[in-house]
Amino acid sequence: MTFKVLNKHEFARRGELITKSSTVQTPVFMPVGTYGTVKGLTPQQLHDIGFEIILGNAFHLHLRPGLETIKKFDGLHDFMCWNKSILTDSGGFQIWSLNELRKITEKGVEFKSPLDGSKIFMSPEDSIQTQLTLNADIIMAFDECTDYPSSQDEAENSMNLTHRWAKRSIDYFQKHKDGHLLFGIVQGGMYKDLRTESLEFMSNLDFDGIALGGLSVGEPKKEKTKILKHLAPELPENKPHYVMGVGTPEELVEGVRYGIDMFDCVMPTRNARNGFLYTSKGILKIRNSEHKNSTKPIDENCDSYTNRNFSRAYLHHLDKCNEILASTLMSIHNLAYFHKLMSDIRKSLEENKFEEFLDSFYDMRSLKKPQL
Amino acid sequence: MTFKVLNKHEFARRGELITKSSTVQTPVFMPVGTYGTVKGLTPQQLHDIGFEIILGNAFHLHLRPGLETIKKFDGLHDFMCWNKSILTDSGGFQIWSLNELRKITEKGVEFKSPLDGSKIFMSPEDSIQTQLTLNADIIMAFDECTDYPSSQDEAENSMNLTHRWAKRSIDYFQKHKDGHLLFGIVQGGMYKDLRTESLEFMSNLDFDGIALGGLSVGEPKKEKTKILKHLAPELPENKPHYVMGVGTPEELVEGVRYGIDMFDCVMPTRNARNGFLYTSKGILKIRNSEHKNSTKPIDENCDSYTNRNFSRAYLHHLDKCNEILASTLMSIHNLAYFHKLMSDIRKSLEENKFEEFLDSFYDMRSLKKPQL
Repeated sequence: MTFKVLNKHEFARRGELITKSSTVQTPVFMPVGTYGTVKGLTPQQLHDIGFEIILGNAFHLHLRPGLETIKKFDGLHDFMCWNKSILTDSGGFQIWSLNELRKITEKGVEFKSPLDGSKIFMSPEDSIQTQLTLNADIIMAFDECTDYPSSQDEAENSMNLTHRWAKRSIDYFQKHKDGHLLFGIVQGGMYKDLRTESLEFMSNLDFDGIALGGLSVGEPKKEKTKILKHLAPELPENKPHYVMGVGTPEELVEGVRYGIDMFDCVMPTRNARNGFLYTSKGILKIRNSEHKNSTKPIDENCDSYTNRNFSRAYLHHLDKCNEILASTLMSIHNLAYFHKLMSDIRKSLEENKFEEFLDSFYDMRSLKKPQL
Repeated sequence: MTFKVLNKHEFARRGELITKSSTVQTPVFMPVGTYGTVKGLTPQQLHDIGFEIILGNAFHLHLRPGLETIKKFDGLHDFMCWNKSILTDSGGFQIWSLNELRKITEKGVEFKSPLDGSKIFMSPEDSIQTQLTLNADIIMAFDECTDYPSSQDEAENSMNLTHRWAKRSIDYFQKHKDGHLLFGIVQGGMYKDLRTESLEFMSNLDFDGIALGGLSVGEPKKEKTKILKHLAPELPENKPHYVMGVGTPEELVEGVRYGIDMFDCVMPTRNARNGFLYTSKGILKIRNSEHKNSTKPIDENCDSYTNRNFSRAYLHHLDKCNEILASTLMSIHNLAYFHKLMSDIRKSLEENKFEEFLDSFYDMRSLKKPQL
């Protein structure tokens, strides 16, 4: 039993996911550490914020440092000095992002390395093997991300390829796993019936979790919500639900309402490096000149190292001087904000006060709570 | 009594300097925080290494964020969240570095802002006032750095201007100080008789410490050593001795032998950002391909956070990917190396084992111990 639901409110769930490295409290936000580092933070700083799981990217780590290096270590945990859980993305999404640099066949994907142009081939089996070498706690099946927009035919063909690759992923995984978990990825574009079919397909295979892919591919937010809403009552009760590459604080909150347990996104760290800071009242742009002489903290309601110790004026100054510390302190703040948001959601679910949480969340932002 | 010598070996001294913010154990290395941040490190990380004093630059901080911002805070400590000691450089050296952008008169220096080309005037009084506004623990007199090379006449004229400015600095300081300390700066180029004259001049004024300026201006190491050697027996016993902008580990060790108590240099952090790491056996270049798969730490003899937790392969990888964490972890390592070096020197002086320290220091590097 790797996943337990502890409490529910409508579709929203308070749960616990046990991996070989740690126990992860859900709903959870997972910071993205593409190249074996969450940009700008030491593992100690991630630990201090309270994260129990982070992401790595099989695609990027396969290119740099490459598996030859990783094999000298006991996997990615040992390499990057992170002893809690790691989930690795299979590379499907990253290869899909290469556009004309990739060629997809039944066997797998051939692509040109964005680093040196060399040809690389990756099959579902290769992806799983890469992730096993990385020794990730949670491994993702190899999928083809469906283009947006795409016709129903295109979406169906793409989904069927993902299904065949899912079977090959699980076959290879079963033979080689050692305490690892494997998640399947639901595709189907923006078509409800295809999404239902794909979810059913994945739910019937022996996956440890169900991920929703293809929901951060440039589609309007309305479309994403449509699919989440449609799938919410169909998601399997006993497995964790992960929506990939999502999202804003509002999307996280809405995701939880639709039964999602796990999220990841580069936004908190990428936005931090561009001076966009998350607060309980919305986004604060530190580059605005109004902050030049402000002794105020970023947010009255945040307990991050950054927020406790530094003023808006100091962060404005560091950002203006292109100091490394600007990226570090603002990334710490944004990640701490996302961590606290999920922690508040979990607490409200435990105390059966999720509706109150939602009311207060939308009130603070002067937004109307959307209908479920 | 702000400075006490606790122990001596020939010219080398183990001492203690008390500022309004903290007690500083000497000999000490002070990391440089030009713009109110030691590049790449949080104040917490500086504190964890064990630093008791860091540098700020009056010149840079005057330009950015500017005094208007600093005045909203209780000085630089409050602005950057550093509660131990701060020494500020007066701006003399930085303005001198501007070359053709500056015009020096008896009254002070007019220079073009390297940021926006606007004309700025700074007198000795302005510099002291800026440093008082920054609320530095240790304030430096405003000096003219002597060019290298320069004729004896040029060096003498420049020195005399520095002397007149030193008097004006001390006059202004005495009227406005509040627990701050003021150091005078000895100039005189590479001329022993001028250096003696300048040292005597500064020693006879009511300065809390004596700094040697103009010794990191492009002169050969041999010239620097000649001046240090010449001044060593003439330095006033009861005041701290600070050689500005110095240096390599070897120069620090030699400096202590010549009676120097305080050092600062951008090298540990600048070199870290370029992949040059200090070790007990000399410099390690992390970009060399030999480190690509190395599970070894940087140095067998270092207790830094970086060294305890990360391999050469991981740092090589981060550096190759231009990750922010590369700069942070390598800066932490280099600063921890400099901190430990000074701490080892202090311990050896306390235990009357400085000669043994010197023998071991040079042996590890396969270098011959220079004659004192």
